Amino acid sequence: MPDRPRRICVVVASRANYARIKTVMEALRDRDDVELQVVAAASALLSRFGTAVEQMELEGFKPSATVRLIIEGENPTTMAKSTGLGLLELPTVFEMLEPDIVVTVADRFETIATAIAAAYMNLTVAHTQGGEVSGSIDESVRHAVTKLAHLHFPATALSARRVLAMGEDPATVFNLGCPSIDLVARARLGSRRALIEQLNARGTGSPIDPELPFLLMLQHPVTTEFGHSLDQINATLDALSAVGMQALVFWPNVDAGSEDVAKGIRVFRERGRDEGFHFLRHVPAETFIRLMAHCACMVGNSSAALREGAFLGTPAVNVGTRQAGRERGGNVLDVGYGPEEIAWGIREQLAHGRYERDELFGDGTAGVEIAGVLAVAEPRQQKRLCYDAAALSAE
Amino acid sequence: MPDRPRRICVVVASRANYARIKTVMEALRDRDDVELQVVAAASALLSRFGTAVEQMELEGFKPSATVRLIIEGENPTTMAKSTGLGLLELPTVFEMLEPDIVVTVADRFETIATAIAAAYMNLTVAHTQGGEVSGSIDESVRHAVTKLAHLHFPATALSARRVLAMGEDPATVFNLGCPSIDLVARARLGSRRALIEQLNARGTGSPIDPELPFLLMLQHPVTTEFGHSLDQINATLDALSAVGMQALVFWPNVDAGSEDVAKGIRVFRERGRDEGFHFLRHVPAETFIRLMAHCACMVGNSSAALREGAFLGTPAVNVGTRQAGRERGGNVLDVGYGPEEIAWGIREQLAHGRYERDELFGDGTAGVEIAGVLAVAEPRQQKRLCYDAAALSAE
Amino acid sequence: MPDRPRRICVVVASRANYARIKTVMEALRDRDDVELQVVAAASALLSRFGTAVEQMELEGFKPSATVRLIIEGENPTTMAKSTGLGLLELPTVFEMLEPDIVVTVADRFETIATAIAAAYMNLTVAHTQGGEVSGSIDESVRHAVTKLAHLHFPATALSARRVLAMGEDPATVFNLGCPSIDLVARARLGSRRALIEQLNARGTGSPIDPELPFLLMLQHPVTTEFGHSLDQINATLDALSAVGMQALVFWPNVDAGSEDVAKGIRVFRERGRDEGFHFLRHVPAETFIRLMAHCACMVGNSSAALREGAFLGTPAVNVGTRQAGRERGGNVLDVGYGPEEIAWGIREQLAHGRYERDELFGDGTAGVEIAGVLAVAEPRQQKRLCYDAAALSAE
Amino acid sequence: MPDRPRRICVVVASRANYARIKTVMEALRDRDDVELQVVAAASALLSRFGTAVEQMELEGFKPSATVRLIIEGENPTTMAKSTGLGLLELPTVFEMLEPDIVVTVADRFETIATAIAAAYMNLTVAHTQGGEVSGSIDESVRHAVTKLAHLHFPATALSARRVLAMGEDPATVFNLGCPSIDLVARARLGSRRALIEQLNARGTGSPIDPELPFLLMLQHPVTTEFGHSLDQINATLDALSAVGMQALVFWPNVDAGSEDVAKGIRVFRERGRDEGFHFLRHVPAETFIRLMAHCACMVGNSSAALREGAFLGTPAVNVGTRQAGRERGGNVLDVGYGPEEIAWGIREQLAHGRYERDELFGDGTAGVEIAGVLAVAEPRQQKRLCYDAAALSAE
Repeated sequence: MPDRPRRICVVVASRANYARIKTVMEALRDRDDVELQVVAAASALLSRFGTAVEQMELEGFKPSATVRLIIEGENPTTMAKSTGLGLLELPTVFEMLEPDIVVTVADRFETIATAIAAAYMNLTVAHTQGGEVSGSIDESVRHAVTKLAHLHFPATALSARRVLAMGEDPATVFNLGCPSIDLVARARLGSRRALIEQLNARGTGSPIDPELPFLLMLQHPVTTEFGHSLDQINATLDALSAVGMQALVFWPNVDAGSEDVAKGIRVFRERGRDEGFHFLRHVPAETFIRLMAHCACMVGNSSAALREGAFLGTPAVNVGTRQAGRERGGNVLDVGYGPEEIAWGIREQLAHGRYERDELFGDGTAGVEIAGVLAVAEPRQQKRLCYDAAALSAE
Repeated sequence: MPDRPRRICVVVASRANYARIKTVMEALRDRDDVELQVVAAASALLSRFGTAVEQMELEGFKPSATVRLIIEGENPTTMAKSTGLGLLELPTVFEMLEPDIVVTVADRFETIATAIAAAYMNLTVAHTQGGEVSGSIDESVRHAVTKLAHLHFPATALSARRVLAMGEDPATVFNLGCPSIDLVARARLGSRRALIEQLNARGTGSPIDPELPFLLMLQHPVTTEFGHSLDQINATLDALSAVGMQALVFWPNVDAGSEDVAKGIRVFRERGRDEGFHFLRHVPAETFIRLMAHCACMVGNSSAALREGAFLGTPAVNVGTRQAGRERGGNVLDVGYGPEEIAWGIREQLAHGRYERDELFGDGTAGVEIAGVLAVAEPRQQKRLCYDAAALSAE
Repeated sequence: MPDRPRRICVVVASRANYARIKTVMEALRDRDDVELQVVAAASALLSRFGTAVEQMELEGFKPSATVRLIIEGENPTTMAKSTGLGLLELPTVFEMLEPDIVVTVADRFETIATAIAAAYMNLTVAHTQGGEVSGSIDESVRHAVTKLAHLHFPATALSARRVLAMGEDPATVFNLGCPSIDLVARARLGSRRALIEQLNARGTGSPIDPELPFLLMLQHPVTTEFGHSLDQINATLDALSAVGMQALVFWPNVDAGSEDVAKGIRVFRERGRDEGFHFLRHVPAETFIRLMAHCACMVGNSSAALREGAFLGTPAVNVGTRQAGRERGGNVLDVGYGPEEIAWGIREQLAHGRYERDELFGDGTAGVEIAGVLAVAEPRQQKRLCYDAAALSAE
Repeated sequence: MPDRPRRICVVVASRANYARIKTVMEALRDRDDVELQVVAAASALLSRFGTAVEQMELEGFKPSATVRLIIEGENPTTMAKSTGLGLLELPTVFEMLEPDIVVTVADRFETIATAIAAAYMNLTVAHTQGGEVSGSIDESVRHAVTKLAHLHFPATALSARRVLAMGEDPATVFNLGCPSIDLVARARLGSRRALIEQLNARGTGSPIDPELPFLLMLQHPVTTEFGHSLDQINATLDALSAVGMQALVFWPNVDAGSEDVAKGIRVFRERGRDEGFHFLRHVPAETFIRLMAHCACMVGNSSAALREGAFLGTPAVNVGTRQAGRERGGNVLDVGYGPEEIAWGIREQLAHGRYERDELFGDGTAGVEIAGVLAVAEPRQQKRLCYDAAALSAE
């Protein structure tokens, strides 16, 4: 072992990544036995996704390196190629930084570049949010990263059981909850009026009336249903129109198909159907949590509705297949892609109102606990599928 | 479904790949309902690895595209970067070829580029040799590719059970044996004299005396033990010297560390210790099978000793961790990296002589059967981890 | 020479590229002795730049290959890296297409990737618009491409003399005018009312009153003044406000700094200063020509003001250094970056009104003539600096 | 200007690069007003080209970054792609190192990646050995780099005049000689016996008899004559055989076609025609200089015969087109590719014996003088073609 603090390198590849690893980064930074390295990559660097890197720097996480890898186009081809670009560049960065452990977050397409680069270079790979089930290419990415990672931090007990079932060594699987819940647990929710006025001053479209209830809409493309994203966003926007409640609408992420989602929103606006709608590109994670706490209902297919929403008790209408199979609390109502069922779901949830807190994804202590494991876990390189051959044979 | 023969694209990334998928390619070519596309990539294009692509063309498989991706240096960094280069290029190729199914073979580091590119582009990914267990980075690559693949062709019953245990849908797992055994089963072994004389005319070093028994040595670097490859090859060469039997020695593959293996062999020669040793870069798969049939004992860490060796009953001394955990027949004796134990193992195997045939990895019909499945299997995009939640909870 | 029509591959990397090579492509397509190949690359594929590739297909130029190479970020770093990505991909494309001659257009940053790839692969490289002088990195790119190209089609007599002065072989330099003028010469200018109504139905902001004169504004970043683009666009927008005439404003291209230009325009709009301004992303080249014919004055730093503007006699105010040194007709008034001088310039030009036609950049026959040379020119690989050593010594 | 020593980054991409810039690096390192940064790239990192980076480290130049970019295959396609890989990676490195000036050496294919990356990133680019004339793709690369560079250090007066004739600003062109001559001027030539015995202990083939004269052969592929390299090397080897003098033969560089040159040498050896030939991969520059001083005649197409050879007065037979047009002293006899004319040339030169010193390429002070300019030259970004328009028009 080198005679220096252990170097732990967190690769932050998007705004969402940052929200889901930030309390781990804080805890690592606070430890004496660890040197935290931060690499900002992919959409975390792009202004149309809110330049998460700037917020990271404001909050004290200056990146040791930045890796620009998003090739414009946002279709399945560029999604693969952008990952390839990351895989070309990250080894150079890891060679310069010489980390002991590399942390990769969740299941976005470019996540796997981090996992491959680090694993091939015989660095110990740590992975959060393994073992979950969803739709989109994320489902494949997530489990492939599990098979490349040496340390696993699944967010729920069921996810942990799945990681073990996939043949990971029990000594490497730590069920400590999701760091994203830490942010929720410590959030100051503040007043709805202050929050809404702040956001009305940003974005475009109609201002939201802070005295009246509002919907919160966020819908990403499903990469495995590429070519259908435009129809899908149109249906959801139609449903919102039909329900008639004012709504805050976010632009989508950088997955294949997001250009179609954006187009749907643009056309909706250009046709003048956007009365009562306010459009935002991105807000800090803490602001989004406050929106989830104050909105009447979430609509779309963001995993936040299932994850942070469970803890907050936010009524949510989950549209389509993107979250299919993912664990969720009682706050989520699943519907298909039809505008009528989406509208029905929203009305059901509005009638129900807020739900009880559900600590399915953690209780707010994950960051410190994960950092504690990362600081002392034995380094690993060679993996080995961990099955009892006799048990397998008996099946 | 498009109104044309199904397009099945096989990506051949090395000489070994070709040997392990060739009978599938033959069977696909012979079908009317399939259009076979071949992509030659990575070390399959390089002359120091025998330009496998030339042999493929001779045997009627002209590539639709070639992808040069090996970045010189052969260390963990370039291994990751070469994979990234493949992942940048393969999407362009798949866009031009528009295959329905992409076939990726086994577990070499660049294999995952094929799997990622195809999966991200919503093509159906088929994978052979999943579910095996070994050392080196191959172990991680193999299982990660399983999690990206939609159709699985494991080579043994136990491998198939492992693929299922990892959560793959039983409808997508086909236990049909390994196509590499097809080549063994149909091989004409011929006379030792003819074989040896042919090889004496190639390569360098002492000619092999065709009247006397000979050892067959092939040792690759273990990527997860990068930095130890030189010591490891030196120990094996010392053992060969100690045993004193003439030996055919092959140069290693392109994994990180292969430069060190090659250096060990070069220094061994330059020090004049190579009396009785003949050195070869590569031979066609059929020739290698004949060598395995005629040699007195194999030494090193090639998976061929375990796989083709089981069917042929070739006595084999398996050195170190590269094949750790992989299924093998009774023909294999495992030893560590010490020269004494390697020499002991060789002497034990020479005393034993050849073994009975073991059809653990198949009986010679895999190629046709796998092609049959590929021709008619339902296309798939969206994967889903396939576990019974109740069963998981009960554990 | 191969016994088949000569293959000429035109790489179109942007909407502007297309406008400046289209009549050459038409003429090549009409010839029996030539097979035209089209590669669409870079911003020609991106929807926020109008997906020029779709217009190309509508007009009968289906690309043989597409190369996505723009890495998001639009700063000097990504500009270099995007060029690198093109240089990684184009060789694969040229290997598949096997052209005899590759045509690269003008001086955008990614142009050099085409020139290098083709020259290194011993293909004959043809270049249009060499020998001009301007600011920005284009100045360096243009002359470097000249040194890599084998056939030169400068757009003016002075440019041709400069290409010769740089040491190019006189047998390879053809002064035939600029194909962009062909489009101008054959354009049907139509009525201002029809044109304006068509554009009012697109874009955003205030509609233009077709009965009143309007300004046409297009300002790109200067890459060698990266970091100043925001101030520069703000000054021009301030000048437009001060003049008070309604204006059509175009969004900028993809050079480093364009994000800052776009930001300036966005903030201008969000501050509600955009009364009387209509914003457009892009229009077909023919529509832009009609706008130049009908506007009261052009403002900004587009080369169109100098080039097509000379032929059309459009009064133009050229801001800053981007076109510094470029040939221009009498229709252009140069000003610096200050809002007052820009406003002064606009008022001067409005007072003057339209100018006489100037055929400095050609008379409308360049496309057919360049195609004629490409069809029969001797293929070349080895270049040689063409100076009279005695003359040099005498200097 | 930043308040710190000026950062000057030298990119060393090959063993030959190093020899031709080393005294500049030494002089920069010795200055207080400069921080020297070294980037090792391309074949400078590869063991089969002698891992120049190891020698650099031994001599006190530890690289700040290493860039692996050579894609295996050595044909025109990989030559272009390797350059693209460099252009993808170097911007990341320059972002991390933040140099003020980037120095690129001579004219090898990957040199242009350094020039483009730095120029696009608005760094000041300095270039050595511009303005020379030769064959191969180097001819195009060299002049294209001149058009991207801001500071020029041509090696001869004629080269300087050519750089000026190409339109470079006279204030940026410095005729200070070639740093490679510095090494020659300070070399201790030692005894032939010691030198030969040292080299006999390395390499392969027959030892050289130190009492007898020997030829020194080094022949690289001509990229623009790709496909002819095998015939060309065969002819030269035949000529050496015909002359019958013992010879030291070096393996070729990494240009497209070098695999064919290597193959020619290998086959020559395998056919047992190599009696009296000793083969070497590479030696330090100082050792090569000593070889040039002690050999009876150089044969091949290395530029060293023209450059260092002029100063040393080494009789040289220059074969084929690779150096066509390059300045040379009286020590060089040009011949074509035929074995008879090569043999004739060797015999002529052996009859003549050594030549007088010619300081055409410098007198041994270039390194210090170039470093002096680099330390104080005004930074530049925007270039401008520097011609007197009136003078051009008058031609």
